Amino acid sequence: EFAKIDHHRHRRNGFPEVIWGEGKTPEQIIKIMQAMQRQNQELQQPLPVMATRIEESVFTQLQTAIPQLNYYSIAKIAALVPEYLMLQKSGLISIITAGTSDIPVAEEAAVTAELSGFQVKRLWDVGVAGIHRLLSNLQYVQEADVLIVVAGMEGALPSIVGGLAQCPVIAVPTSIGYGASFNGLSALLTMLNSCASGIGVMNIDNGFGAAILAGKILKTANKINHKQK
Amino acid sequence: EFAKIDHHRHRRNGFPEVIWGEGKTPEQIIKIMQAMQRQNQELQQPLPVMATRIEESVFTQLQTAIPQLNYYSIAKIAALVPEYLMLQKSGLISIITAGTSDIPVAEEAAVTAELSGFQVKRLWDVGVAGIHRLLSNLQYVQEADVLIVVAGMEGALPSIVGGLAQCPVIAVPTSIGYGASFNGLSALLTMLNSCASGIGVMNIDNGFGAAILAGKILKTANKINHKQK
Amino acid sequence: EFAKIDHHRHRRNGFPEVIWGEGKTPEQIIKIMQAMQRQNQELQQPLPVMATRIEESVFTQLQTAIPQLNYYSIAKIAALVPEYLMLQKSGLISIITAGTSDIPVAEEAAVTAELSGFQVKRLWDVGVAGIHRLLSNLQYVQEADVLIVVAGMEGALPSIVGGLAQCPVIAVPTSIGYGASFNGLSALLTMLNSCASGIGVMNIDNGFGAAILAGKILKTANKINHKQK
Amino acid sequence: EFAKIDHHRHRRNGFPEVIWGEGKTPEQIIKIMQAMQRQNQELQQPLPVMATRIEESVFTQLQTAIPQLNYYSIAKIAALVPEYLMLQKSGLISIITAGTSDIPVAEEAAVTAELSGFQVKRLWDVGVAGIHRLLSNLQYVQEADVLIVVAGMEGALPSIVGGLAQCPVIAVPTSIGYGASFNGLSALLTMLNSCASGIGVMNIDNGFGAAILAGKILKTANKINHKQK
Amino acid sequence: EFAKIDHHRHRRNGFPEVIWGEGKTPEQIIKIMQAMQRQNQELQQPLPVMATRIEESVFTQLQTAIPQLNYYSIAKIAALVPEYLMLQKSGLISIITAGTSDIPVAEEAAVTAELSGFQVKRLWDVGVAGIHRLLSNLQYVQEADVLIVVAGMEGALPSIVGGLAQCPVIAVPTSIGYGASFNGLSALLTMLNSCASGIGVMNIDNGFGAAILAGKILKTANKINHKQK
Amino acid sequence: EFAKIDHHRHRRNGFPEVIWGEGKTPEQIIKIMQAMQRQNQELQQPLPVMATRIEESVFTQLQTAIPQLNYYSIAKIAALVPEYLMLQKSGLISIITAGTSDIPVAEEAAVTAELSGFQVKRLWDVGVAGIHRLLSNLQYVQEADVLIVVAGMEGALPSIVGGLAQCPVIAVPTSIGYGASFNGLSALLTMLNSCASGIGVMNIDNGFGAAILAGKILKTANKINHKQK
Amino acid sequence: EFAKIDHHRHRRNGFPEVIWGEGKTPEQIIKIMQAMQRQNQELQQPLPVMATRIEESVFTQLQTAIPQLNYYSIAKIAALVPEYLMLQKSGLISIITAGTSDIPVAEEAAVTAELSGFQVKRLWDVGVAGIHRLLSNLQYVQEADVLIVVAGMEGALPSIVGGLAQCPVIAVPTSIGYGASFNGLSALLTMLNSCASGIGVMNIDNGFGAAILAGKILKTANKINHKQK
Amino acid sequence: EFAKIDHHRHRRNGFPEVIWGEGKTPEQIIKIMQAMQRQNQELQQPLPVMATRIEESVFTQLQTAIPQLNYYSIAKIAALVPEYLMLQKSGLISIITAGTSDIPVAEEAAVTAELSGFQVKRLWDVGVAGIHRLLSNLQYVQEADVLIVVAGMEGALPSIVGGLAQCPVIAVPTSIGYGASFNGLSALLTMLNSCASGIGVMNIDNGFGAAILAGKILKTANKINHKQK
Ligand SMILES: Nc1ncnc2c1ncn2[C@@H]1O[C@H](COP(=O)(O)O)[C@@H](O)[C@H]1O
Ligand SMILES: Nc1ncnc2c1ncn2[C@@H]1O[C@H](COP(=O)(O)O)[C@@H](O)[C@H]1O
Ligand SMILES: Nc1ncnc2c1ncn2[C@@H]1O[C@H](COP(=O)(O)O)[C@@H](O)[C@H]1O
Ligand SMILES: Nc1ncnc2c1ncn2[C@@H]1O[C@H](COP(=O)(O)O)[C@@H](O)[C@H]1O
Ligand SMILES: [Mg+2]
Ligand SMILES: [Mg+2]
Ligand SMILES: [Mg+2]
Ligand SMILES: [Mg+2]
Ligand SMILES: [Mg+2]
Ligand SMILES: [Mg+2]
Ligand SMILES: [Mg+2]
Ligand SMILES: [Mg+2]
Repeated sequence: EFAKIDHHRHRRNGFPEVIWGEGKTPEQIIKIMQAMQRQNQELQQPLPVMATRIEESVFTQLQTAIPQLNYYSIAKIAALVPEYLMLQKSGLISIITAGTSDIPVAEEAAVTAELSGFQVKRLWDVGVAGIHRLLSNLQYVQEADVLIVVAGMEGALPSIVGGLAQCPVIAVPTSIGYGASFNGLSALLTMLNSCASGIGVMNIDNGFGAAILAGKILKTANKINHKQK
Repeated sequence: EFAKIDHHRHRRNGFPEVIWGEGKTPEQIIKIMQAMQRQNQELQQPLPVMATRIEESVFTQLQTAIPQLNYYSIAKIAALVPEYLMLQKSGLISIITAGTSDIPVAEEAAVTAELSGFQVKRLWDVGVAGIHRLLSNLQYVQEADVLIVVAGMEGALPSIVGGLAQCPVIAVPTSIGYGASFNGLSALLTMLNSCASGIGVMNIDNGFGAAILAGKILKTANKINHKQK
Repeated sequence: EFAKIDHHRHRRNGFPEVIWGEGKTPEQIIKIMQAMQRQNQELQQPLPVMATRIEESVFTQLQTAIPQLNYYSIAKIAALVPEYLMLQKSGLISIITAGTSDIPVAEEAAVTAELSGFQVKRLWDVGVAGIHRLLSNLQYVQEADVLIVVAGMEGALPSIVGGLAQCPVIAVPTSIGYGASFNGLSALLTMLNSCASGIGVMNIDNGFGAAILAGKILKTANKINHKQK
Repeated sequence: EFAKIDHHRHRRNGFPEVIWGEGKTPEQIIKIMQAMQRQNQELQQPLPVMATRIEESVFTQLQTAIPQLNYYSIAKIAALVPEYLMLQKSGLISIITAGTSDIPVAEEAAVTAELSGFQVKRLWDVGVAGIHRLLSNLQYVQEADVLIVVAGMEGALPSIVGGLAQCPVIAVPTSIGYGASFNGLSALLTMLNSCASGIGVMNIDNGFGAAILAGKILKTANKINHKQK
Repeated sequence: EFAKIDHHRHRRNGFPEVIWGEGKTPEQIIKIMQAMQRQNQELQQPLPVMATRIEESVFTQLQTAIPQLNYYSIAKIAALVPEYLMLQKSGLISIITAGTSDIPVAEEAAVTAELSGFQVKRLWDVGVAGIHRLLSNLQYVQEADVLIVVAGMEGALPSIVGGLAQCPVIAVPTSIGYGASFNGLSALLTMLNSCASGIGVMNIDNGFGAAILAGKILKTANKINHKQK
Repeated sequence: EFAKIDHHRHRRNGFPEVIWGEGKTPEQIIKIMQAMQRQNQELQQPLPVMATRIEESVFTQLQTAIPQLNYYSIAKIAALVPEYLMLQKSGLISIITAGTSDIPVAEEAAVTAELSGFQVKRLWDVGVAGIHRLLSNLQYVQEADVLIVVAGMEGALPSIVGGLAQCPVIAVPTSIGYGASFNGLSALLTMLNSCASGIGVMNIDNGFGAAILAGKILKTANKINHKQK
Repeated sequence: EFAKIDHHRHRRNGFPEVIWGEGKTPEQIIKIMQAMQRQNQELQQPLPVMATRIEESVFTQLQTAIPQLNYYSIAKIAALVPEYLMLQKSGLISIITAGTSDIPVAEEAAVTAELSGFQVKRLWDVGVAGIHRLLSNLQYVQEADVLIVVAGMEGALPSIVGGLAQCPVIAVPTSIGYGASFNGLSALLTMLNSCASGIGVMNIDNGFGAAILAGKILKTANKINHKQK
Repeated sequence: EFAKIDHHRHRRNGFPEVIWGEGKTPEQIIKIMQAMQRQNQELQQPLPVMATRIEESVFTQLQTAIPQLNYYSIAKIAALVPEYLMLQKSGLISIITAGTSDIPVAEEAAVTAELSGFQVKRLWDVGVAGIHRLLSNLQYVQEADVLIVVAGMEGALPSIVGGLAQCPVIAVPTSIGYGASFNGLSALLTMLNSCASGIGVMNIDNGFGAAILAGKILKTANKINHKQK
């Protein structure tokens, strides 16, 4: 028994366990997916079954065993989506990238958020070297309920966004860059040291975690909402 | 003119600029505090004027110029508190520490949150070496709308809390430790790599930023709330 | 003469020299294995001849020269097992992993311990993000005479286990993770800084060494035992 | 309530909680010590109450409140020792240092082990630059049931001892050194990479933890011992 | 003879040698200053004699021996200024800081540039958390012939300025910050990885070097200028 | 829309946006190049369209869609060069390498500078281990208006050149080396710490950025020039 | 002209320039080798022409152009050896490795030393985990005029040898190891911090440089020798 | 017994043990010095007794107990010098520094070498920013039998000297510098990566070790010398 699936994570944390695909064999992923699917069917839970970091070639193998599996190729996510995805009551998650190369990480966040039932808006390639690109899209910053800002290299974009936004900002450093970017370390340190207060930082390339945190923030909002009525 | 006070930060970000006390002379701090006080009086804004990282000896000097200044000695915060602190509508921020030595950072968060008008609960010294101390206080985890978890040394507590909580978790590494803790680096890396998904990480010892993020989360909740009505 | 086999290590250290397979040619491994086999036969020592970090393709080459060689594919260990493995008198080694991806390192420990003649119990995938998985398996922690805890990413599991166990805990960080896990550095620092006292830490991915240390601990127990009678 | 004393650690882990003195005020240390003393008296437990990293000047303040407190000045440990220290059944812990400057860390281990009721032998200043000093004291290595080896600078001594010993070796890097020793990092890495198998490594300067692990090893020995009878 | 003064540096590099004050005794500084003064008098060169990193208390000692010495207290520079400072033909150096705490480094640059005979403009405390402070001062960016941008913490300001400026940008990271700023490392990496192309980066806190580079740039401009006529 | 091309960068910064080829698909590069080409044609701007870090195999794919594309194989640059390249008024950029292996980075700088319309001189393989090679080519140092010095391994060459040159020196560390060169970190640190004052440092292997900075320096020269007339 | 061959290095440094093969094309290596060969023939210098880090497949290509080229496959050195190798007057270089995997680096040293005309003795695989292997070969340590000690992992062997030897010890860390060996960093730090005084350390895997230093030491010996007569 | 003095080091290594003063109490230093003095008197060995890293205030305390003690204040060495210092037969050690601030480390080397009986020449402050200062003192490089080159900041001087010298070069990085010099790390890496072959590197600030290595080199020379006669 190589895996102890955490079948109650959905109850405890508000989102089912998600399979981290890297370093697992296709066979292992198939077995875990099928066990989670079975559990969802038994309990009649309309929950997605999701795996991240799935290369195209791995997906092809998974699909043979689980034909109804979807693939989000830029996000590298494979997912079994229930017929009626449990829709979340409210809240808009806006996702912004500094460059074109940061899009895969941002898409990991976007697909995770959408599979969690949230509304998502995308704004790509508005990094600080041409700050007018962000300033002419300020409505993305202003109408969001949570912002996810994804950036590699020097990772300065979350600081600018954080200085302009009312809502919480989640910063995701990416491993995009070369030389002294040290595979994302430079962007990570930038975000941790942001002089714009109140930015929550994720691990390098962790688009998935950013979406989960964004979802928790919106659910807390809805919970408070209920209590007040 | 050594400082350009960001008088509109309150409008843009929901919280006024806060003075970072380290590396400023008492004279500089006094001048900035007085300028912010004046601005608040003119606009009749019931906002706190706050400075962090204020040593006791510095406070004594500030107090001579600004007699009505309060001092929160564990948090090392000096603040001018308006008579009627603008009360925030709703939401509970619970703050948890792993050890006794982490309390100053946690108090920086607690005082900042309280001066922002939020309700705060404190749970100190429930680190993972005696996990029953957390398990027998689970109501702190369950009733919170946002959790701030503060830990030094190996910094494992946010992972445990993150695995048990529905609400967003903000992790604050502290510089407490010795040897291979490398002044908080160990705790920081632990939190960034947490296998409990959706934890937002702050800079080492940044209790202040954690409170600001927690406040932004609760304000987003209230905003969504309004839109829905 | 490219290798000076340490034929007396068994006498000095209680376990024969083991071949580190990485970076050696199959020819070198075969020559060393045969020399050790010859020595064991001459001295009629029922000792295993063991090589770690052996890829499947390398094993195939070794097997041509040494047909009776066994292969433990998850542990990546190749071994010549004597007909009657010298059984150790007493002691149970329990091995626990945080995740599924940590199993290869844990199996390196498990197979090494078993080839040393010890009884081994395995508990996989009970990491801190779902702490109930460990808590509902506490008997593994309580009945063990030595615990080996294997974890990647934030590496927090040994701290929890260390806080619950009477017996010695050996912590093995793994290189599993991404981004700021820095190939196991994060887990390593966590374990070195554990606030649960008395945890012995091994190099990253060093399941083998953990088993050797566990074996030395149990042999010391037996030695004291003898002296007392 | 700034501390949640872990009164049951003794039952769970075989040794009572020990106060980490660095970064605590004398008042805090006194309060914790008195609470633990009270608990021991109520339950009639002959357990030591111990604090580490206590500077001489801090001890003087503690002593005013707790006159019967002992001070171990090289180890920087303050302890309330019960009249009859619970004696451990068996096992010898030998502690070895590479240099003279490593003695304080070694004494932290030695005093902790003695207050735990174990027999301790000390061998100081036998580092690898004059290996004959160790070789002419081999009986320390051979008669020990557990070895604690303490070294700074290049930290090579545990590798030599590990290659000569039957019993478990616990390696403690110290922050002694300069330049590229990087405050103990060099010695720490040396010990983690030791080609002598089965060495458990502690955090830099963590003599205390080494003694706790040594104690757990000897208790496991005694436990197995009992089961067999 | 503890110092070989590089009396021809002015000819080779366009600026005389400057004394690095840190780690030199007042006696050493005085001797070097007097030797340089003598040389300037002999050759009738109207050059400043300058020492950086001079604490106030050191200056007091220097002044006793060299009464006509000037002190720039924020920049921590002591200098003998010739009656007629050789005026440079043309070019404006604008210096910008992100925060108030970065001013000392910026002043080291400003005073060095002024003593080199250049015109300097100062703009303090316009960091990225309140980007409007920079945007409402864009004329500083546009009219400059060289820009020196000084920032600590996340060090993002040069990226923004670099994206807006026609002229060369010299970025100076400062050691201002805490935790994961690692004494300026975070700001340094940000600047090296800037996605705004063509930013030259200096060592942490090296305001002096930035001014020398700015001066060389303007002198090259003047040289080309001459050739063309 | 995966890219927001910064069509006005040429106006703001004096050089059009350049495509960073690494991590982009050939399709993405083609689309961006064609959009920039269209823009240049519409506005009748004689500007190059340029992509860096283009492997030979990628270029072959690009060429199918854009037949008039040029390839600079050592520099790994692909570019659409306008019939009449806008010639810059004045200034000589000399580029110097320490070794033969540094040439690709130096060529990235050289080609970028030439496509920007500047005159370039090349001096390869004159590193410090045979300093006479530089000393016998001093005219390269003396006649330059800007110097770009490219070096890997210990990266000492810019210090020597910086001590000999009147004009600004731009230092580019390369990732050439092994062992403790840590992929260019050693050369980078050397250049940041240069005791020759006034050297601007680029990211590791960033020949492109060095050329852009050199170009900005020469344009500033021309601008001042104009103002004076 | 991609290379400025340093034809006089032999005169200045006592050994001709040697080609660093990594990162050069076979064509480049051939051209440089032929130029050096021509120079040696013209000046009738019986000097070797040597290239290091030459993979077997590269050698095959070189051999087509230069048929009389020799290949030392373990050392990965290709060399043109003159008919009569200039024999050095005196001195024995002994080379010792800790493990079998360190042999390639040691052979790089050994072949370089032999091509320099020195006498070499080899002792492989006598690392510190079985220190008797060194102690039973002490004559290697005692009869040497210079010792080169090569070790990976924890790199402790030079400390032991340094404590036993009269002659100079040159320490070469290798990249052999895993996990916290960080590709040779651990061994490098060990050697730099050696408490055996007077060990000269080389870059990671730099067997070549060790041999050159050893050669310089023996030549100095011979030079002094001459002066005395 | 806190120290095991290595009384035979002189026989084994050619130089007596030297006391590392940092972190030892004056009492400890006195006891060790007196024991070594006694041993020298008994065996009638004309050997110095030496302690390094001795602050002036510590020396004053030592002198009370050992009145004939000498103090070398720049080198921070305290030594008992025998009436007739055993003179070494031959060889000149030249010591060169890059800056004025590097002199204390260089003096540690110089005094150690002189107390070892060697002839020493000193050349201070000839760093690479003004390379003519070295070039006009080339006789220091040419007449030396061993060179010790001491440099902080970027540490480039040994590369230049190494490219010019016939004799062995020992490089000593110093902790002089600021910012990205990281307390000597930058200079250390530079020296390890030197493209001038055959430079032996010491730990940061280890002037002592450099002198010991230089001494061993010259003794090897004399030994070979003897064998030949
Ligand atoms: N304790 C704190 N931790 C982190 N950031 C802080 C803290 N106190 C103040 N700040 C931030 O520092 C900025 C002020 O920096 P300064 O302009 O130097 O006073 C403000 O924008 C605050 O948001
Ligand atoms: N010298 C020491 N080294 C390492 N850990 C220690 C030391 N002294 C006490 N501890 C541990 O630190 C914990 C106490 O931390 P605290 O709650 O902050 O007093 C205890 O659980 C001890 O196990
Ligand atoms: N504040 C400063 N920052 C960086 N370099 C400086 C500074 N002040 C002086 N220097 C340089 O340090 C060198 C003098 O070093 P020294 O010979 O030790 O006095 C001069 O060449 C200056 O160019
Ligand atoms: N300044 C120094 N730098 C490096 N090593 C030293 C120095 N002074 C003494 N030592 C070495 O340190 C060792 C003594 O350490 P200890 O036993 O702690 O006194 C001796 O073996 C010396 O070789
Ligand atoms: Mg873009
Ligand atoms: Mg506690
Ligand atoms: Mg799992
Ligand atoms: Mg000693
Ligand atoms: Mg400010
Ligand atoms: Mg070359
Ligand atoms: Mg071996
Ligand atoms: Mg100087």
